[in-house]
Amino acid sequence: MANAKQVSGKLEWRINVPDGTSNVLVPESDQLVNKVWLWLKGLLCGPILIIWRFLYKAWNLGVAEPKKAIHGVKVGLSLLIVSFFYYMRPLYDGVGGNAMWAVMTVVVVFESTVGATLSKCFNRTIGTFLAGSLALGVQWIADKSGETFQPIIIGISVFLLASAATFSRFIPSVKTRFDYGAMIFILTFSLVTVSGYRVDRLFEMAYQRLSTIAIGTSLCIFITMVFCPIWAGSGLHDLIVRNLEKLADSLDGCVGEYFKDDKTKLDNEEDPSKRMQGYKCVLNSKATEEVMANLARWEPAHGRFNFRHPWKQYLKIGTSMRECAYCIEALNSCINSEIQAPDYLKKHLSNVCMLLSTNSSEVLKELVITMKTLTKSSKIDLLIGEMNLAVQKVQDSLNSLPNSFIGPTVSTLQAPNDANKETITKTAIPSLMEVFPLASLVYLLIEIAARAEGIADAVDQLAGLAEFELAMDENSKQKKLTSNCTSDIQDHETMKTLPKLVQYMLHKYIGR
Amino acid sequence: MANAKQVSGKLEWRINVPDGTSNVLVPESDQLVNKVWLWLKGLLCGPILIIWRFLYKAWNLGVAEPKKAIHGVKVGLSLLIVSFFYYMRPLYDGVGGNAMWAVMTVVVVFESTVGATLSKCFNRTIGTFLAGSLALGVQWIADKSGETFQPIIIGISVFLLASAATFSRFIPSVKTRFDYGAMIFILTFSLVTVSGYRVDRLFEMAYQRLSTIAIGTSLCIFITMVFCPIWAGSGLHDLIVRNLEKLADSLDGCVGEYFKDDKTKLDNEEDPSKRMQGYKCVLNSKATEEVMANLARWEPAHGRFNFRHPWKQYLKIGTSMRECAYCIEALNSCINSEIQAPDYLKKHLSNVCMLLSTNSSEVLKELVITMKTLTKSSKIDLLIGEMNLAVQKVQDSLNSLPNSFIGPTVSTLQAPNDANKETITKTAIPSLMEVFPLASLVYLLIEIAARAEGIADAVDQLAGLAEFELAMDENSKQKKLTSNCTSDIQDHETMKTLPKLVQYMLHKYIGR
Repeated sequence: MANAKQVSGKLEWRINVPDGTSNVLVPESDQLVNKVWLWLKGLLCGPILIIWRFLYKAWNLGVAEPKKAIHGVKVGLSLLIVSFFYYMRPLYDGVGGNAMWAVMTVVVVFESTVGATLSKCFNRTIGTFLAGSLALGVQWIADKSGETFQPIIIGISVFLLASAATFSRFIPSVKTRFDYGAMIFILTFSLVTVSGYRVDRLFEMAYQRLSTIAIGTSLCIFITMVFCPIWAGSGLHDLIVRNLEKLADSLDGCVGEYFKDDKTKLDNEEDPSKRMQGYKCVLNSKATEEVMANLARWEPAHGRFNFRHPWKQYLKIGTSMRECAYCIEALNSCINSEIQAPDYLKKHLSNVCMLLSTNSSEVLKELVITMKTLTKSSKIDLLIGEMNLAVQKVQDSLNSLPNSFIGPTVSTLQAPNDANKETITKTAIPSLMEVFPLASLVYLLIEIAARAEGIADAVDQLAGLAEFELAMDENSKQKKLTSNCTSDIQDHETMKTLPKLVQYMLHKYIGR
Repeated sequence: MANAKQVSGKLEWRINVPDGTSNVLVPESDQLVNKVWLWLKGLLCGPILIIWRFLYKAWNLGVAEPKKAIHGVKVGLSLLIVSFFYYMRPLYDGVGGNAMWAVMTVVVVFESTVGATLSKCFNRTIGTFLAGSLALGVQWIADKSGETFQPIIIGISVFLLASAATFSRFIPSVKTRFDYGAMIFILTFSLVTVSGYRVDRLFEMAYQRLSTIAIGTSLCIFITMVFCPIWAGSGLHDLIVRNLEKLADSLDGCVGEYFKDDKTKLDNEEDPSKRMQGYKCVLNSKATEEVMANLARWEPAHGRFNFRHPWKQYLKIGTSMRECAYCIEALNSCINSEIQAPDYLKKHLSNVCMLLSTNSSEVLKELVITMKTLTKSSKIDLLIGEMNLAVQKVQDSLNSLPNSFIGPTVSTLQAPNDANKETITKTAIPSLMEVFPLASLVYLLIEIAARAEGIADAVDQLAGLAEFELAMDENSKQKKLTSNCTSDIQDHETMKTLPKLVQYMLHKYIGR
């Protein structure tokens, strides 16, 4: 811009504004041209920009999750195939004008996950069948009762059944599983009874409607399950695994961030805040988990999951994960607190706290492996024992604190320079207020360990319900192969059967 | 049973089981009869019991939320009215066999809230219109290109548009507002292009479909808005208000429960646990809030809400409420902790902590009033000032603690009996470990106060956006009427304009 002005060499009026910038005064005729130009530009570019942005977003989404784009293609393909019912003469004659219902079924029933598609297919078929039969019955009664009563009977039955079915959609058990079926029930019942008054070929109509729906649903089921199927169950499983990983990362990130030195802060270039915020995904995934668990129940055996895989247990794991995430949320606020504990106190507790958080996150990571491999972990009880041991260590180092709490000597603290020396001497006897964020952090870490154990219990229940096999870690495998030291494996097995308290005592007093 | 046995006077064989009960041995023939009887009973009673339970649940739901039952009646009524299009000759001749579409529109479009119904009506109309026009265009092109290319062009266009529209349903901005419209677009486009191949009267069909949809949607809109309308906006507003109340109750309940004496525990007969658990509703209402805020945007002015009421701001209030609820969750775990702080420390902090929690919950309750009356509170800044003052008091009493922390004399503690005396002397020098749950509790209380202020800020933003009027409290009103002391009102006004820090200083040092 500045260059162009120099070339044109026009006279310019500048106003120097107090904040240091300067505005150029543009002559009025130029302003008008500019305004018109801007208006035209806005008029032309506005919609183009909006469409461009929309397409850009869509492209990004498609690149990030190609499954969604594939789903679009699958729907297009299904509709294309259904259209053949119109194009091909023999098919057309067979199913008649009602082939429209096949198109409609495909559009309405085809959902992105297999579970949702199956659920809708089931609901649509059963809803249509039940409502159709009932409507035929009502029609028969209405026919027998003479022309005066016919519309009254039909009207009352439509009113009553539609009201009842609509109300039933609010009942939780119906809502989660048969909401769509109830809607289809009302739709079919109304259409069949009301058309029955006009259309004489009622049976034929009901038959055609059912057969077209059968064609539509079977096509949908075939395509959704054969071409790149998207399983709600696998999705739920992956979501839980991902969230477990995020929890472990958040915990590591938060505690590491709090206890790390300024030197480490400079060395570590990667922004840890994103990693620390992972727990927020856990907080917000309740609704998704519930929807997916509901849909997964409709799905047949797929991949490594059986038909009756205990999907409900995933909700319990999710709940226990959220309980852990609440604590990490509170922990996060401790870390960002304005009041900070004195450095020497932080150092005193740094090691044990880091140990506890590492042990807790190791338990979570072991659970991730358990979930990923669908095998019972042989190490988990050991890790939980270690975690509990770390809790004990934290408590011990707190108990040993009152001695140093009264005031440490400056010499033991290795003050880096003279400026800090004075500060340390001053904060040597800290008020409780200064200790409190740290106290809260320690308390929350202990609470998080307890809640991580809760997650481990929930995963263990899942392992029991889904009959996970026992995993053998690499060490055990090798040892078993060489047959050098089988006692270790026996120890592991024995450890697993011991109640946790005994394990904990063993750890504490024998160091195993 | 025992009586009947005595009357029949039969011989009985009893086995005394080690757990203290005794089993009667029944002869085998009796057992067979019993089994058959039980089997028959199960066969007959099972389904009856299931249906009975379902009806019982439904009845309870209807009694608890009569609006849902009314919605059912509204749908029934709409369907009844739509059916007249079939019964009445003149209407039938006007709209033709396509009257079916009116029935379908009513069933599919009629949702429980006005917002959802309007959104679906809009989506259905626009989707049908767009897809219909586009389909006519494609049909025209296909017609011009000869019989060979006609099915190819139609097939390709159906495939491409259906794929693109299905994919677009995953894009967040489309998903939240135009999901249903995209589905209707695909449906209409497929139906019109595909039927166009057969049906010659294409324009007429499109016109009829649009007009029947218009009839259906206008009927739905009329009935949903005139008879007992259920507004998503009001629902969202009430939900937020209810959740605010629950937060305040939970906070009061939790802290009260922790600090109350055993004597008070016996006096207070009401079970406080239910009241304390209220915050859990806040944790779980994110999805509901988002759905309702999305629907509320479609609603016209109703009750005390304008058309452009800032519904999005409710989501922000909800988020800040959840942040507060996370802390209450952590607080709750402190209260249920196994490690409890020594009694004298608890007593030392009891008053200030109770004051802080009461002040925080008073701020929340004032926000409830603000939301309920849709007026700016004149007291809220004062209450926030008081809350911050209480935070300072808590901090002060913590700072004064180290003196008593070393060990109080037993005489000052008023030990109730000899047994306790020893305990107190022993716990007089508590380890930090014992202090930690209390420390955590205090820290969380301070954090909750900060987050309550966050909620107040969010509500204040809402008040600004929705242009709430300034409320006058009863005292101010009376004073204004008597004109005795107008300075107080001026003080209030001045208080509001002062930055919070200054207010806080005023509070602290002048006591105003």
